[in-house]
Amino acid sequence: MTERTLIERYFSECGAQRADVRIGIGDDAALLECPPDMLLVAKVDTLVSGVHFLADSSPASIGHRALAVNLSDLAAMGARPAWAMLALTLPAADEAWLQGFSSGLGALARAHGIALVGGDTTAGPLCISVHVLGHAPRAGILLRSGGRPGHVLFVSGTPGDAAGGLALEQGRIGTGNAQAARFLRERFLFPTPRLALGQRLRDHASACIDVSDGLLGDAGKLAIASRCGVEIDFDALPVSAQLVTLVGDARARELALTGGDDYELCFTVAPTEVARLEHDLPPAEWGYRRIGVLREATGATVTRGGTVMQFSHSGYEHFGG
Amino acid sequence: MTERTLIERYFSECGAQRADVRIGIGDDAALLECPPDMLLVAKVDTLVSGVHFLADSSPASIGHRALAVNLSDLAAMGARPAWAMLALTLPAADEAWLQGFSSGLGALARAHGIALVGGDTTAGPLCISVHVLGHAPRAGILLRSGGRPGHVLFVSGTPGDAAGGLALEQGRIGTGNAQAARFLRERFLFPTPRLALGQRLRDHASACIDVSDGLLGDAGKLAIASRCGVEIDFDALPVSAQLVTLVGDARARELALTGGDDYELCFTVAPTEVARLEHDLPPAEWGYRRIGVLREATGATVTRGGTVMQFSHSGYEHFGG
Repeated sequence: MTERTLIERYFSECGAQRADVRIGIGDDAALLECPPDMLLVAKVDTLVSGVHFLADSSPASIGHRALAVNLSDLAAMGARPAWAMLALTLPAADEAWLQGFSSGLGALARAHGIALVGGDTTAGPLCISVHVLGHAPRAGILLRSGGRPGHVLFVSGTPGDAAGGLALEQGRIGTGNAQAARFLRERFLFPTPRLALGQRLRDHASACIDVSDGLLGDAGKLAIASRCGVEIDFDALPVSAQLVTLVGDARARELALTGGDDYELCFTVAPTEVARLEHDLPPAEWGYRRIGVLREATGATVTRGGTVMQFSHSGYEHFGG
Repeated sequence: MTERTLIERYFSECGAQRADVRIGIGDDAALLECPPDMLLVAKVDTLVSGVHFLADSSPASIGHRALAVNLSDLAAMGARPAWAMLALTLPAADEAWLQGFSSGLGALARAHGIALVGGDTTAGPLCISVHVLGHAPRAGILLRSGGRPGHVLFVSGTPGDAAGGLALEQGRIGTGNAQAARFLRERFLFPTPRLALGQRLRDHASACIDVSDGLLGDAGKLAIASRCGVEIDFDALPVSAQLVTLVGDARARELALTGGDDYELCFTVAPTEVARLEHDLPPAEWGYRRIGVLREATGATVTRGGTVMQFSHSGYEHFGG
């Protein structure tokens, strides 16, 4: 199979069709129409076999996740994705794998109206970089750095589920309850980028970050960018019944703080804005919860009943650190 | 070294500073100001160790080439590059390697006023994807598909030099003449993207492609996109004196046709436009030469004194093909 055949067979029709794509796959580069008066939002993320996914993972999950991790970053900026490009390095042109990968990537792309406008396929150890481009209005840019002491901290979804799902995939914990296990595996294999929530948060949040390396570490990054500290209430952490069923309440809360791959949003809201947020975006409907507050004193702390708890690590570091 | 330290030390100041970068490295995604009334041009290319560069290559060359291959694609669209993003997967945070890589990438980026606005560093087998974004005016878009039968075919530079340089690097040919060998190695290790020529060709050329996989194959791709065939005159191929010194005239012309990694431009011009092209952009000054013509009959042929020559391969295919 030539590179050209591979692209035509698996990627030419993979994403959504968009009128703003003047030239997509097939020429030296893509030519795209940017909407006037919007900022361009750009993000690249790489998934490496054995680091970001298990070598024997379902290719549909790998395709989904390769795009989802980027969409999650765009969600955290309150941006709307438009176009994606794929740099795919793979050991061999395995047709079943390519079919699965392309269907996982394509389904998520089409669900969000994203066109696949280019890419590069190369032979080598499995490594996938997806680059996503999108748009955000100039007004109300959502950054990590807008938090202030006293701002209330929220998180979407039920963090820790993906870490539980990964532990199940790796056989590190037993499948006690089949239904709960299936739910957690699904959260790891097919995470949901919170794009709609991110876009709505532009009107309410002071700062936002996506939770990819563990909630405690990522909330800490938001706090550092905002020149604050952060305090998280252990008992307020939203943990899923499924995760509690499998690992117990205390371990579930630890995974919520330090597990990775959640792709939820962690955001802050000025205290005077909280009532309007909860009115406009009812927490039960939008799936988020108040979990802490930004403080003057730097550092990320977790408290339980007023007492500070100790955690041995606060997220994942690629080069040891 | 943490990922954050690595990025701050080697990449935060790597590219040019640009006023249109609202948010660069450091938040969830980059926020960029697009000029009104321009098309966005986007391209990603991947370099894999052992495929696109030798594992023991100078890291400065790897950094240069990782960006140059993309800039060459933008040159072929007549676009002006603005921003780059880097997805870097490397086995370990080797500081000397990172220093060299970053200096090679940064020097080329700054030479063209390109800001490095984001990226992702991961641990894994060495693999580098660079994504370049740029701008092109809406009028006079330069595509592969604009050629017509009778249009004259040109190529810039002296293709084949990079293939000669690679053969020297790999020890497949001997270093007969040290000065010639140094020149050819340099052409392989530090190719020159023809951005200025590409931008000027918008006013003259009917079609353009960059020569990365071998001139014969790439001219063939241009012809296919233009629904034509192409005929190249073997004796008209511009070969460097240095390449001829090392491998002889006939082999030099073969390398010019089938060697890869040249990153020159191959373009077509309507016969009625050739005089204006050669007046506005004198060939000796701009470094390009007429090498053939587009034909009605499909296929890529090479002729010598009116006789069709046979070539066993026409460029590099990543998956066998």
